[in-house]
Amino acid sequence: MQEALDLLLSKGTVKHFKKKDYLIEEGQVSKKVFFVKQGVVRHYLVTHEGNEKTIRLSKENDFFYSSIVSYFTNEPSYIFCQCLTKAELFYWNSDEIEQLFIDEPNLGDLKNKLLMNFILEKHKKEIALLTQSAEARYKEFFDANMGLFNRIPHHIIASYLDIAPETLSRLRAKKS
Amino acid sequence: MQEALDLLLSKGTVKHFKKKDYLIEEGQVSKKVFFVKQGVVRHYLVTHEGNEKTIRLSKENDFFYSSIVSYFTNEPSYIFCQCLTKAELFYWNSDEIEQLFIDEPNLGDLKNKLLMNFILEKHKKEIALLTQSAEARYKEFFDANMGLFNRIPHHIIASYLDIAPETLSRLRAKKS
Repeated sequence: MQEALDLLLSKGTVKHFKKKDYLIEEGQVSKKVFFVKQGVVRHYLVTHEGNEKTIRLSKENDFFYSSIVSYFTNEPSYIFCQCLTKAELFYWNSDEIEQLFIDEPNLGDLKNKLLMNFILEKHKKEIALLTQSAEARYKEFFDANMGLFNRIPHHIIASYLDIAPETLSRLRAKKS
Repeated sequence: MQEALDLLLSKGTVKHFKKKDYLIEEGQVSKKVFFVKQGVVRHYLVTHEGNEKTIRLSKENDFFYSSIVSYFTNEPSYIFCQCLTKAELFYWNSDEIEQLFIDEPNLGDLKNKLLMNFILEKHKKEIALLTQSAEARYKEFFDANMGLFNRIPHHIIASYLDIAPETLSRLRAKKS
């Protein structure tokens, strides 16, 4: 799988982004796939009540579509993707990467693995939100992403975890 | 695609289920894929507060894994799948259907389309829950599933839509 990943990366374009740069905004159509070499990106949307809600966080070694629904349906995105730090990203335009998957049969397994990861990630998050308490969700996230707390604003982590910012502060105080 | 679907169905086993029969319960490992010929199935889990929460409803012509996370990770399921009506379902055991996908290259596109549908469905539901009001979610569901209101208990539809049962009653009264 490492070989396929290296091949894919060798065909991508590297681009540097500044903190707060947008990769996509609501209303645009997603035409790009990204891979994080360095940095943190948040995926968020604006709720019907007008609040920003973070639905995904991408850090080093994460693949993502700027908006997976928009990418595959060609409909305008509901999602904003914004760099939370300076970022160095690989990207592929949709026509390039879809052609690559046709031309390079060795990438087939990698593509299927990536799509499967997107399925499992989203289902697991839905299940965790329903079956785990705020404290359990915080603990699991902290164990997997300890370094993020020094890199991005905590209210964004709270939004991602579906926890009030005050609750996140309380849980962090309790833990230390 | 219809040809591939017919081929897949011809290799499946048809089984009749009674109302309230379970296809999988929490703690079991998912080993089956289903297709609904007739009937309605709910997918639910028990929240950390002890409430049943419906996360998916399957009706005629819907494919589903009894628990997609458990199926692909071999971990015990968090999900219960229960027939809400008498049901006639096609099913395939995991080893049978995975072998079929290897033996029958014509099924490859169908498999990819099904996986893509699972990705889009879950992302779209997440987006709808955040960007649409309860009334808008109800209206969209009603337009696509009008017949379901006569077939299954309304509190289950309310749970699926993340709306209080009283709110659903109010919205239905308002609409008619």
